[in-house]
Amino acid sequence: MRHHLAAAIAMGLAFAATQTFAAQDKPTPSAKDILAASKPSEWRTPDPTNLLYMQLPAGRVVIELAPDFTPLHAANIRTLVRQGYFDGLAIVRVQDNFVTQWDDPNGDDGGDKAKMHSLGKAKATLPPEFTRPIDTRQPWTPLPDGDVYAPQVGFSGGFPVARDPAKGKEWLVQCYGMVGVARDVAPDSGNGSALYAVIGQAPRRLDHNLAVAGRVLQGMQYLSALPRGTGPMGFYEKAGERTPILSVKLAADLPPAQRENIQVLHTGSASFAALIDAARHGHNAFYPTPVGKLGICDIHAPVRVDGKPL
Amino acid sequence: MRHHLAAAIAMGLAFAATQTFAAQDKPTPSAKDILAASKPSEWRTPDPTNLLYMQLPAGRVVIELAPDFTPLHAANIRTLVRQGYFDGLAIVRVQDNFVTQWDDPNGDDGGDKAKMHSLGKAKATLPPEFTRPIDTRQPWTPLPDGDVYAPQVGFSGGFPVARDPAKGKEWLVQCYGMVGVARDVAPDSGNGSALYAVIGQAPRRLDHNLAVAGRVLQGMQYLSALPRGTGPMGFYEKAGERTPILSVKLAADLPPAQRENIQVLHTGSASFAALIDAARHGHNAFYPTPVGKLGICDIHAPVRVDGKPL
Repeated sequence: MRHHLAAAIAMGLAFAATQTFAAQDKPTPSAKDILAASKPSEWRTPDPTNLLYMQLPAGRVVIELAPDFTPLHAANIRTLVRQGYFDGLAIVRVQDNFVTQWDDPNGDDGGDKAKMHSLGKAKATLPPEFTRPIDTRQPWTPLPDGDVYAPQVGFSGGFPVARDPAKGKEWLVQCYGMVGVARDVAPDSGNGSALYAVIGQAPRRLDHNLAVAGRVLQGMQYLSALPRGTGPMGFYEKAGERTPILSVKLAADLPPAQRENIQVLHTGSASFAALIDAARHGHNAFYPTPVGKLGICDIHAPVRVDGKPL
Repeated sequence: MRHHLAAAIAMGLAFAATQTFAAQDKPTPSAKDILAASKPSEWRTPDPTNLLYMQLPAGRVVIELAPDFTPLHAANIRTLVRQGYFDGLAIVRVQDNFVTQWDDPNGDDGGDKAKMHSLGKAKATLPPEFTRPIDTRQPWTPLPDGDVYAPQVGFSGGFPVARDPAKGKEWLVQCYGMVGVARDVAPDSGNGSALYAVIGQAPRRLDHNLAVAGRVLQGMQYLSALPRGTGPMGFYEKAGERTPILSVKLAADLPPAQRENIQVLHTGSASFAALIDAARHGHNAFYPTPVGKLGICDIHAPVRVDGKPL
């Protein structure tokens, strides 16, 4: 009993009331309840030209690109993928409570640069795309509890977003599972050939200093549970420690039968609003007092595969 | 080159200026600089009666208990440890972006409860200790940028702390690497025999709903990089998936020669204040614009072993 109840801390939103819960304190709907009651129209099927399938030995990672925010990076990454650029590259770095990064290992100082994959038709440099003008045409789902780093936070197009109305700018937030673009010192030195996923506390200092390419929708555990690198900044010290990338493909380039049946809850939907409300005001036997607050990286757009929530 | 510079995002604070950095924009001291210049008196050697050595097959995890905040839990955990309670238990649950939990696997519903370890002289229930009255005698190092969840945040005694002056209460914050006490529905049902470490975005909804026992000082990677459980809420579905706990000992019960030479920077020290300042106002070639803000889970008290920062 203890395990299942203690385990309820895992879900927070999804805790189911038990018979020990006093009747006068009627529990609020759980996340599971809310998702079960969601309507088919509240779920979107991501555009397959925005979905990357990264095949690792342990399984598939599915990443949704964010071309509404970083269109030039999305286009360059598609070009790289279609050239087979990432096939045979590797995860070169896993730094605890920070990022898992993949790249051409021959780009490392110990590597043989002559063997580096060619960027081919992809661009070597891109305009930064660290922020974009606030797009008032897109549905905006604000969070009401503020943020340490930005004047406003909320969701747009399925992604966590921060806004600075005074500057008229918005940008993707580097929450857990977001995929960013590594770069050199020059702001335009990132091109999407070296990417990272956030695997710890959101490193908000990266916000609007690096381009964010998208979000891991599925298979995050294949990136987050890797052995940490023992070199400086979590780089692997030996080639054999790296996880090989077998292939990266665009879902659009696969026959429909080989694509994942993956859907994401619209962040402008009533069900997503209900999830936000449950996180802020929900209470149950385990959490008798509502938290009352919600941070931008403390909720994300739910994903389902074959109709089953991940 | 790209790797090492892109890798600079890893450190944020610790990025070293390069020759490409314009002279007029003199970089601020890095975390590495600040730690190198710290004084011996700014480091404390944790009381060995507060240090747990949890030996896993891959290595040792060192946890510092927080008896100033949760004294009854610290005492009960010491009693359990000295009885050998944890020896032969296991990590039973790893939920991505949430917690790694260890416990008696025979407490699981599929286990043989008759084989559960005896609590012996330890108490089966404890007063919650979810908060304590604000202790104004302790040095308090506030963070000035606010918090989504609490009226005030800062550091006290080496730990991240939230405060509500209106209620006169303070509590440990569930940041990455903090160790919490699993419990049943009743607030007094936790006793320290089932513990978890936070391995993802700080689950702030747990704050002042669960007791926090302490913090992982060393070996976090042995908890964070474990395979995620595939059962509900990250529980392992098969016994063979669990990581065995070889032993948990108090440092105080080992001969001094067998203890780690581990030190923690005083969070009331000038060097820790300088680290906070560097995180907020630091700039360099990679981050030309200071972030200006710092969240409570975005910095922690540095640890060194044999004089080397971890």
